[in-house]
Parts: sequence; C-alpha cells; structure tokens
Amino acid sequence: MKSFKLLVAVIFLFVLTVHSQDSLVLRKIYDEALVNGKSYENLKYLCKQIGPRLSGSPQAQKSVEWTKSLMESYGFDKVFLQECMVPHWVRGEKEVGKIINGKTSIDVPICALGMSPATPKGGITAQVIEVKSLNELEILGEAAIKGKIVFFNRPFDPRFIETGKAYGAAGDQRFAGPAVAAKLGAVGVIVRSLTESLDDYPHTGTTQFPEGSRKIPAAAISTNGANQLSALLKLKKSPTVQFYFKQNCKTLPDAKSYNVVGEITGSESPNEFITVGGHLDSWDLAEGAHDDGTGIVQSLEVLRIYKAMGMKPKHSIRAVMFMNEENGGRGGDKYAELALKNKEQHIAAIESDGGGFTPRGFTFQDVSTETINNINSNWKELLTPYLADRLSKGGSGSDIAPLAVFKEAVLIGYRVDSQRYFDIHHTPNDVFENVNKRELELGAAAMTALVYLIDQHGIK
Amino acid sequence: MKSFKLLVAVIFLFVLTVHSQDSLVLRKIYDEALVNGKSYENLKYLCKQIGPRLSGSPQAQKSVEWTKSLMESYGFDKVFLQECMVPHWVRGEKEVGKIINGKTSIDVPICALGMSPATPKGGITAQVIEVKSLNELEILGEAAIKGKIVFFNRPFDPRFIETGKAYGAAGDQRFAGPAVAAKLGAVGVIVRSLTESLDDYPHTGTTQFPEGSRKIPAAAISTNGANQLSALLKLKKSPTVQFYFKQNCKTLPDAKSYNVVGEITGSESPNEFITVGGHLDSWDLAEGAHDDGTGIVQSLEVLRIYKAMGMKPKHSIRAVMFMNEENGGRGGDKYAELALKNKEQHIAAIESDGGGFTPRGFTFQDVSTETINNINSNWKELLTPYLADRLSKGGSGSDIAPLAVFKEAVLIGYRVDSQRYFDIHHTPNDVFENVNKRELELGAAAMTALVYLIDQHGIK
Repeated sequence: MKSFKLLVAVIFLFVLTVHSQDSLVLRKIYDEALVNGKSYENLKYLCKQIGPRLSGSPQAQKSVEWTKSLMESYGFDKVFLQECMVPHWVRGEKEVGKIINGKTSIDVPICALGMSPATPKGGITAQVIEVKSLNELEILGEAAIKGKIVFFNRPFDPRFIETGKAYGAAGDQRFAGPAVAAKLGAVGVIVRSLTESLDDYPHTGTTQFPEGSRKIPAAAISTNGANQLSALLKLKKSPTVQFYFKQNCKTLPDAKSYNVVGEITGSESPNEFITVGGHLDSWDLAEGAHDDGTGIVQSLEVLRIYKAMGMKPKHSIRAVMFMNEENGGRGGDKYAELALKNKEQHIAAIESDGGGFTPRGFTFQDVSTETINNINSNWKELLTPYLADRLSKGGSGSDIAPLAVFKEAVLIGYRVDSQRYFDIHHTPNDVFENVNKRELELGAAAMTALVYLIDQHGIK
Repeated sequence: MKSFKLLVAVIFLFVLTVHSQDSLVLRKIYDEALVNGKSYENLKYLCKQIGPRLSGSPQAQKSVEWTKSLMESYGFDKVFLQECMVPHWVRGEKEVGKIINGKTSIDVPICALGMSPATPKGGITAQVIEVKSLNELEILGEAAIKGKIVFFNRPFDPRFIETGKAYGAAGDQRFAGPAVAAKLGAVGVIVRSLTESLDDYPHTGTTQFPEGSRKIPAAAISTNGANQLSALLKLKKSPTVQFYFKQNCKTLPDAKSYNVVGEITGSESPNEFITVGGHLDSWDLAEGAHDDGTGIVQSLEVLRIYKAMGMKPKHSIRAVMFMNEENGGRGGDKYAELALKNKEQHIAAIESDGGGFTPRGFTFQDVSTETINNINSNWKELLTPYLADRLSKGGSGSDIAPLAVFKEAVLIGYRVDSQRYFDIHHTPNDVFENVNKRELELGAAAMTALVYLIDQHGIK
C-alpha cells in the first residue's frame, strides 16, 4: 500500500513537472511572438508590395517567390515548391449593374462571381425574379424562370452567434444557385452579397457549374443594392423593373503554379509530419489580408518561432502556403497527393483560414468524444492564460481536408473571433489596415503552442 | 430508499427544468438583441449628433437630455436625473509640441492631459530628461530634475495577453507622474501615450495633482513622437535637445451636471436593485464611441430588451448613465450617496467600460472562491453557446465601485476582447466607425442575460 502511494505520488509529480515545463515553453512562445514577432511586417509586405493574388496571376507567382525566399532567409531545413496546375480566371473590366425602373435606371455595385462566364458584349437586360432559396427556385420551375435574371436574396441570419454559420446557411445561393438557375433556363444570376453588413461592397467568391452543364453569367450585388432592388420589386411588379448587367470575365487555360513548403525536420521521426498552413492565393479585388494573408504569415511564424527559440521538434514540422484555395483547391489536393506518393506519415495538420482576429481556440475534425475530452483535460488549462482554450469537435480547413486520406492525421481548424470577418470577406476592404497586430501575433503564438504540444505528446 | 431515489429524481428534474427555461430565455434575449437591437443606431446618434461630451460641456448636457428622453420613449417605469457638481476643464486651443534640436525643430503631436494647467502664453522650452519610471525620477532627485521637462517614456509591455494589464502597468506615468515631477521642481511633463500601437495620435486622459500641491503643465505625446524624441536624446546629449510645448487649457469652476437613471421596478422586491451602467461623459477629442458610448447604449438596451420581451423582473433594474468618470468620478459617488440616503438595497451592479468589443465574460469583485465556483457551476454552461462564459474574480468598474458600501452588492465588470481598445482609447480615432454592430449587440445581450440570471436566482 505504501509503495502504491509512493508510485501515485511519483506519477503525480512527473505529470506536474511535464505540465509546468510545457507551461514555461508556451510562455516563451508567446513572448517571442509578441515581442519579436515578424508576422505583422510580413503581412504588410504581402498586402502592400504584392497585393491581390488570384491563382494564375503574376502576383500569385510573385507571392510564391517571396514566401520561398523568406523561408530560405529564416534558415528552415528544407524549402521547396510543389508544382500544380490551377484554374486561371480573370475578371476583365469593371462590371456594370443597373436596376431599370421604367425609363430611369439606378447604378448598383456588382462584381462577377469567380468562374462565372461573361455576359454578351452589350450586357444582359431581363426581368428579375427574386427568390430566397434554391428550393423556392425549383418549385417555381422552368416556366417561371426561363429568360429571366434570378435574384437570390436570402440575407444572413443574425441569430447565429458565429458568423461562419450564417455564411454556411446563406452560401448555397452563391456556390450552387447559378447552376440551378441555369438548368431552369435563366439568362443570368444576381446574388445578395454574403454578409450581414449593410454597405456598398459587392462580395465576390467562387460559384460552381457542374462539368458540361449550361453556364450563365453570375454576379454578386452589394447588400444595399440588393435591398434597393428588392424594395422596387415589391413596389412595382415585373416587367416594369428589370436588371441590366455587363461583365467580361473569362476562364483561360489552366496555369502552372505552386505550393510553397518550408520544413524543420524532426529529430526523432523525420517522416512524420505536422503541417500548419494557410492559402497564398486571394481574390483579385482585395489585398487578401484576412483571407488569407494572415494564415500565411502565421504559418511562417510558427516555424520562425521554433528557429528563434532553438527548439528541435521530434516530428517534422511544415509551413505550407497552399495555392488556389479560392477557386479550385488544387494546391490542397496536390499536397495530399504528393504526401501519399512519397510515403509520408501525417499525424496532424492545422489550418488558419478564418481571418487574423483574436484567437478563440481550435476545432478538431472527426475525433472521438474520448479524444476531445483527453485534449481538453491535457491542454485546456495550458491555453487558458492565453484565452485560446476553446477546444472542441469541428471542421478544419479546405486546404488540409485532403489529408483525411491519412487515417492517423488529426485535422484541426484554428478558430478566431468571427464577428468582423464577413464585413470584409472577398471585398476591396480586406486590407492590411483592417488587421490588428496583436490579434495576428496572438494567433501565431496559439498555433505554435498547439504544434509544440502535439509534437511533444501526440494527440490521441 | 425508494422514496429517496424518487426525491433525487424530482430534484434533478426540477433543476433541469429551471436550467432549460433559463436557456430558452437567454436565447430569446439574444434574438431580440441581434434581430431588433437598437444599440447600434443609438450609438450612432450619440457619436455623430452629440459627439465629444466632457463633463461640464454643452454636449455633456445634450447627452443627458437625449438619454433621458430616449428612456422615456422606451416607457421605463421611472426615469430621473441625479444632480451632481462636476469638474469643468477645457482644453482651449490646439496644443503645439516641438523637439528642438539645435537650430532645427520637429513638430510632434501632443495634447494636454486632462486637469493639467496651461503653459505660460509663449509656451515652455527646456532641457528634457527621459525616465522610464517614477522610481527612476525619485532617485535622480531634485538637483537633476529642477527646471527641466520630464519625459516619461516607459512603453506598454506587449507580453501581457490582456491589454488592460499593460495599461495598468504603464499608467502611473500619466496618473501620478506629473505630480511627482512637479514636487521635484520640473517645469513640465511629457508622457508617452498609453498604447502599444505606434502611430501619430496623442492619447489624452486625466492626471492628478494632490490638493494644494504644485501643478505643472503636462501633455501626452504620440508613440511615434516619443520614439523620435528618445532617439534624438540618445544621439545628442542634452542640452542640445530641448522640448517646446504650449497649451492653454484651464479649469473653470465646477459645473452642474447629472446622472441619468432609468428603472424597471421590481415586482417582488422593488427596493432591491440591480444596476447596469456605463459613463456618459467622454474625452473632448473623441466621439467617445468605445469609451464609453458603447457602455451607455448597452445599458439602455438591457432595459429595452426587458420591455420588448415583456419580462417583469423580481428586483428593480436600473440603467445608469454615470457622469464624470473620466476626470472626477463624481457621478459614481453621487449614485452611491443617494442610494444610501434613500435606504435602497443594492444586490448587484454591472459596468460596461472596456469598449464595445466581442464579449468574453464577466469579472466579479471581492467574491469568495466558493461564490465564483457556484457562479461557474450554475451559469457558465448557459453562457457557453454565446462565448461569453469567462466568469472569474476580478475588478468591476470605477462608476459602480462606490456601491461597495453595500455589503450585499456584488460588483461586476463586463469583459470584452481587449486587443484593439488602446489603439483608439482617448484619441480622435475613438469613433462610431470603429465599433462593430454585432460585437456591440452581443455585449448588450450578455449583460441582459446576466441581469436576468441574477434577478431570478440571486448571486451568492
């Protein structure tokens, strides 16, 4: 009995020691990020010197070269590119949108949705049919839709506490709406911008037409513009109110591009990988500050902090700048494909793609209740002083999602305060000035902390 | 045994039912705040139609009248003013600050600290002595300080996770530094602005000279200006580098002003009060959006939500717009003084004065460990869906602090994400545009939720 008590005491002390060592390392990680952090100045360069970087654009190529040389300057063990072919869509001239109300017309801010085709050169004018859902559209059917412009106008539901859920609940209008409208004979689609904010920014973003299906021009309209159009449609019956829009975007042949990968090679298990990443491409209208410049510079910062602190990970740690998240996801696919081909083993991946706002915690994809409970009992307390301790089941990120082919890999989403994200998401307002230095740095530190804990203790 | 089990089951079901009723009420509170909220439009009015409202100013009076009439329009049971005399300090003309470097001079942004005296009409020019702390100043002593301008230049420590702690750690330079420098014979004081942000805004704020002590002119300098001055002082020894500043602020006789109080009278214990409040006055340079317009409109919103939902509180609930938090605290003193005089009983008070950012939770002042544990076990889970569930021991707010005379009163601080607060605190950049609608509304809902729980279940 006595020796049992002693054993319990020894184990307790051992656990306590490990825990307090971890606690000290986390404090040093945060100090490095907050006192010597480079993420903010790196983000400034990416936004102001490179700028918008849609897949296939010269700026996307410039961002590949810049992040590669930055990784080299930080002295990572390996720095390399992964070639992949990416869709190459270009917006062309600034789009024009008008509400035609009898003899008068009102200009409204629109922009083509990514991957949309152009209108005919002179634009399209047609009657407008407003719907709130894809289901409503299907019920109306071809007879009602044919020859018309479909106007999807279901707003964000403000009752969701996290705005990502409101985006998820409204998003089908943009992702899938145009294809359904095309199938029913519509000549064009106007989608209410995916935001709760009432303003004059149209929010771009990709739309999808199934392979071989009929494609029609599709554009986003600002929320103020959508409200104006909807109000006029209520006042005056169609066909008095029509919509006109013109865009000359097009899809060019696929272009060659790259993921950029930096690595600190593991001292014990070099073929077992922990990946941290964000996406390097951004929409063409924005600097791509929060989407996803912040994920890029934070991922770089994780490895830089390791170097600066002289920490040697047991497993190999990679920062991956994924290409083409916005309109294809080819970079994410390529990374998983090469990992399989090279017989790598992946134990965990973390993606930062929710903006560079204040950290809240992490969500763990497809883990068991037992695992999430273990994660919480082992690590929550360590992250509480940093207010980044919400650790729950949930999604990860679309670039790392293809790593699900590795059964051992735990896929993790870095989670931030979500209130401001959709005010600027996919708009010209997604600029460096709207990122707070400390919020960005706290995120880089939180990501480094989690990588450190996984590297030291495993995750299951 | 059987009847004991039955009893346990009944109690369990009862607890579960109460809990799930609370959960439904909280959801309705949030829906009302997020769908029909008025806090954002009220804040816009306060910032844009009234604007800066330092104690004693015409705008302060306008804000008293406007909040009173707004409360009346909402149909609160009682709406009344509490008269109090407040300090009346005025800034006068825009201040001028220059680094004198031999024959050249460099303009730097400064502003007088609140309650500071003016410089002589022609300004002050003197050698500069840079210090990092009050202690350093005391050690240097009168011989080194006499006739000089003292430059307090200890920056925010970025390692604090919550910026309020960095403010607390640097704040003595502004609050107390000028009085100490005056005692040692300095002719003026320049204080590095209390922010981590590197920019060109001088941050005002009050300074204190003990009754009857020598007073000298004191001003804040922007962080960029402070860095410039410090760099020059390192390069070239004094007396080559001097500082010049000029300000003509003054303190007028005390002015008459008011707290504005709105009340929904309790159905069971009308003489027991739960107070929610913020402060109506703001610095003269800013719209006082985050400091503390948001606290004002959130406190109003708590009572408006009660009315809109038709909820009848057991205890009386008051929204208090405190006057003169920034440079005197007279409104807070008056509220407690009248509460005592009128033999009111106060069971709880919540102050919102940390900005209208995303809610984190609440801190409870001077409660026992047992109480905070009870609060957590009873309520944390109810607030978790709203991400406002950090409930810990901590401070409350300076307006409600005088209510500590009521031994039964639990004083509570509403806590928000703190990262952006000191970027704009006490500067012309504290404007309506820097407040996010949802963050503001979520705060009003969290405050209402806590008031509801306290009213229903008590707090100890």
